[in-house]
Amino acid sequence: MSSDGFRPLDEKSLVEYLKATPSLSVKLGDQFDKLEIKEVGDGNLNFVYIVIGQSGSFVIKQALPYIRCIGESWPMTKERAYFEASTLEEHGRLCPDHVPEVYHFDRKMCLIGMRYIKPPHIILRKGLISGIEYPLLAEHMSEYMARTLFFTSLLYLTTTEHKSAVAKFCGNVELCRLTEQVVFSDPYKVSEYNHWTSPYLDADAEAVREDNLLKLEIAELKSKFCERAQALIHGDLHTGSVMVTTESTQVIDPEFSFYGPMGFDIGAFIGNLILAYFSQDGHAEKDADRKLYKEWILKTISDTWNLFYEKFTALWDQHKDGPGEAYLAAIYNNSELQLLVKQKYMDDLFHDTLGFGAAKMIRRIVGVAHVEDFESIKEADKRAECERKALNLAKTLLKDRKTFHNISEVISAIKHLDK
Amino acid sequence: MSSDGFRPLDEKSLVEYLKATPSLSVKLGDQFDKLEIKEVGDGNLNFVYIVIGQSGSFVIKQALPYIRCIGESWPMTKERAYFEASTLEEHGRLCPDHVPEVYHFDRKMCLIGMRYIKPPHIILRKGLISGIEYPLLAEHMSEYMARTLFFTSLLYLTTTEHKSAVAKFCGNVELCRLTEQVVFSDPYKVSEYNHWTSPYLDADAEAVREDNLLKLEIAELKSKFCERAQALIHGDLHTGSVMVTTESTQVIDPEFSFYGPMGFDIGAFIGNLILAYFSQDGHAEKDADRKLYKEWILKTISDTWNLFYEKFTALWDQHKDGPGEAYLAAIYNNSELQLLVKQKYMDDLFHDTLGFGAAKMIRRIVGVAHVEDFESIKEADKRAECERKALNLAKTLLKDRKTFHNISEVISAIKHLDK
Ligand SMILES: Nc1ncnc2c1ncn2[C@@H]1O[C@H](COP(=O)(O)OP(=O)(O)O)[C@@H](O)[C@H]1O
Ligand SMILES: Nc1ncnc2c1ncn2[C@@H]1O[C@H](COP(=O)(O)OP(=O)(O)O)[C@@H](O)[C@H]1O
Ligand SMILES: [Mg+2]
Ligand SMILES: [Mg+2]
Ligand SMILES: [Mg+2]
Ligand SMILES: [Mg+2]
Ligand SMILES: [Mg+2]
Repeated sequence: MSSDGFRPLDEKSLVEYLKATPSLSVKLGDQFDKLEIKEVGDGNLNFVYIVIGQSGSFVIKQALPYIRCIGESWPMTKERAYFEASTLEEHGRLCPDHVPEVYHFDRKMCLIGMRYIKPPHIILRKGLISGIEYPLLAEHMSEYMARTLFFTSLLYLTTTEHKSAVAKFCGNVELCRLTEQVVFSDPYKVSEYNHWTSPYLDADAEAVREDNLLKLEIAELKSKFCERAQALIHGDLHTGSVMVTTESTQVIDPEFSFYGPMGFDIGAFIGNLILAYFSQDGHAEKDADRKLYKEWILKTISDTWNLFYEKFTALWDQHKDGPGEAYLAAIYNNSELQLLVKQKYMDDLFHDTLGFGAAKMIRRIVGVAHVEDFESIKEADKRAECERKALNLAKTLLKDRKTFHNISEVISAIKHLDK
Repeated sequence: MSSDGFRPLDEKSLVEYLKATPSLSVKLGDQFDKLEIKEVGDGNLNFVYIVIGQSGSFVIKQALPYIRCIGESWPMTKERAYFEASTLEEHGRLCPDHVPEVYHFDRKMCLIGMRYIKPPHIILRKGLISGIEYPLLAEHMSEYMARTLFFTSLLYLTTTEHKSAVAKFCGNVELCRLTEQVVFSDPYKVSEYNHWTSPYLDADAEAVREDNLLKLEIAELKSKFCERAQALIHGDLHTGSVMVTTESTQVIDPEFSFYGPMGFDIGAFIGNLILAYFSQDGHAEKDADRKLYKEWILKTISDTWNLFYEKFTALWDQHKDGPGEAYLAAIYNNSELQLLVKQKYMDDLFHDTLGFGAAKMIRRIVGVAHVEDFESIKEADKRAECERKALNLAKTLLKDRKTFHNISEVISAIKHLDK
């Protein structure tokens, strides 16, 4: 054990840890003989153990002081576990239906014990690759985003609550820096970490690096990401951070959370759905052309935004006389004005969403970390073709986002590019 | 003394305090017999003592746990002294020519000892009322703003430095709330604190409260003020926070400082110059019509912005390969692109400046705290006429700020309204 009380666990030492930890051992009825422990961390950063006992189960997630998929050569503060646990708790309080409960948090060990999201739940990205429809996905994700973002913004919080939470999450700076690097910087410069489907996309990757207007826009978004403390965002809300069945939707892994721009979350989710869309042709087979599935993805994108809009503004209406200090009732107390301010707020948020979503798409095609949606397409030429369409859409969205008025115009642009 | 080690001083107990405080008593050569001590706090919030001994002098500023000009009925954290001292030190390090040195800070006593800014320095606002020209004012203030804002922004800081400083200044939340209330809220609603030159401006004040488009814009600015941690701003940079001679310019009183939008500082200064401009007709006398002086004010407004632009972008050029993380050299390394990003950044900053400047003007006419520029105009009808012009300009600036392309268009608008 190091002097700060931290030691990395493995399947074996984890059992000893559980025995010594009442909040967890009680869940197992203090029975450790027939424990099933399996490390399942398919993620990029951390170790995740599923622990199943005779009378209960949970998941243990431990952060190590480096990035797992790269190794000890890329150090990364293990304090991220503290921010992940904090946000799981806060978002869980705000939206318990879609966030696993935290049973235990050990700050020294950088270890979270949380509800095991059981099979048949799978990672949404895998479901999308398999062509599975989730009829409640848009409903659930819009609910999760509307509630977590609304209630942590100045639409609901007082300035005092807001600034104190902002200060706390400034501590998660190393994870913010990682995002700054991999989303807002590396794709726009030569970097040893970047890769793409070569040689097919060589010219496309170079074009990204040479596109002045694109770089002008990504700078604006990066500033917003660094400076605008709008709400407690998840910070990594791609389709690999969502576990689903056809009935249930669970959001995990908010270790990148901090007070940032709401559009970064909404954009991450929608951007990854668009990636899923453009990858479908690579997964189509003779007897399953995925045409209908692609329609379902588009509908889900559109529903996600529209339902988010509806739910978010409904929360606003509901709490317009509440503690939030952004729009005081005594000033914004006429219905015409309320409509105006909401329209303006939501328009700005929509454009942020498109910009951040586009940035997240671009980085998955020419940056360091790619998505399985594309990576699982074996034929490189076919993959490149899918990726190029997604990349071109993303470039349009990033540069011209302010010319889009609603999500159906985005859907049209997607369809247009998919011809 | 209260249990936290705080006790409010007066002229007498201050001497005992000085005797017991080596960093201050040494400045007086440890001689206390012929001390001259004078309380001069003409400001709204705090107590300020000038201390002159035989071998040296300084100023002592102490914060009490309420707002001085209102009394104990409006409590206000005395912790503000900590943020004032921190920012005097930081801004002083960045711009020593225009910020008084801090000799001593006592956190428990909420007490700052700093350089005495000696006569013939006077408060700029008083100089403007007297019709005195300060040929170096624009040069000095643009220097102060360019340096303090540039070096505390992500154009110069790393994200790590920036977030840590942001977190610290989140602690100054009570002062931020005061600004939110008096600048962004009260003028736009019925409030017991509001007043104006009645009955002349009754309809004008009501029109502000009934102007939906104005309220839409003030909401956007309030959000920026609350959410956007762009740089360590002074937070109260009106012409009463500047002491001047024709050769020297000194900025005092940054107790409202925090990481906020740069335009709030630049706008405060320029907005107060515009108030000074519109007050001149009220100070004109038969043999001194102030026409030339008004021209000088307009030139100073224009020079302030243009010199700020020049100095700020020069710092940017100079440090483009520096530690700042907003525009990495490896991405923004071509001159065409550098021009583009600077233009965009400065355009946005210009529009913020106009918006915040306008907000500061409005609140000085229909809000709680007015300015001596107007208050010293004895005839109410004359005063109201001056104020109305300023108010109308401010409304235009706030609503249409994005249609202004440069400061000379603003000057034209001022002149147009002054016909
Ligand atoms: N609460 C949970 N219940 C079930 N499986 C989980 C849970 N949390 C994580 N997992 C599994 O572990 C994987 C990695 O978890 P994740 O939190 O995304 O870690 P990382 O931060 O390393 O990406 C997930 O993809 C999922 O398969
Ligand atoms: N360092 C200084 N040197 C000389 N006079 C000062 C100094 N600091 C403050 N003063 C005087 O005290 C007055 C009030 O100071 P200020 O810092 O503005 O207090 P407040 O926060 O109460 O507004 C100023 O208007 C100025 O006349
Ligand atoms: Mg993950
Ligand atoms: Mg993760
Ligand atoms: Mg009203
Ligand atoms: Mg003052
Ligand atoms: Mg003050």
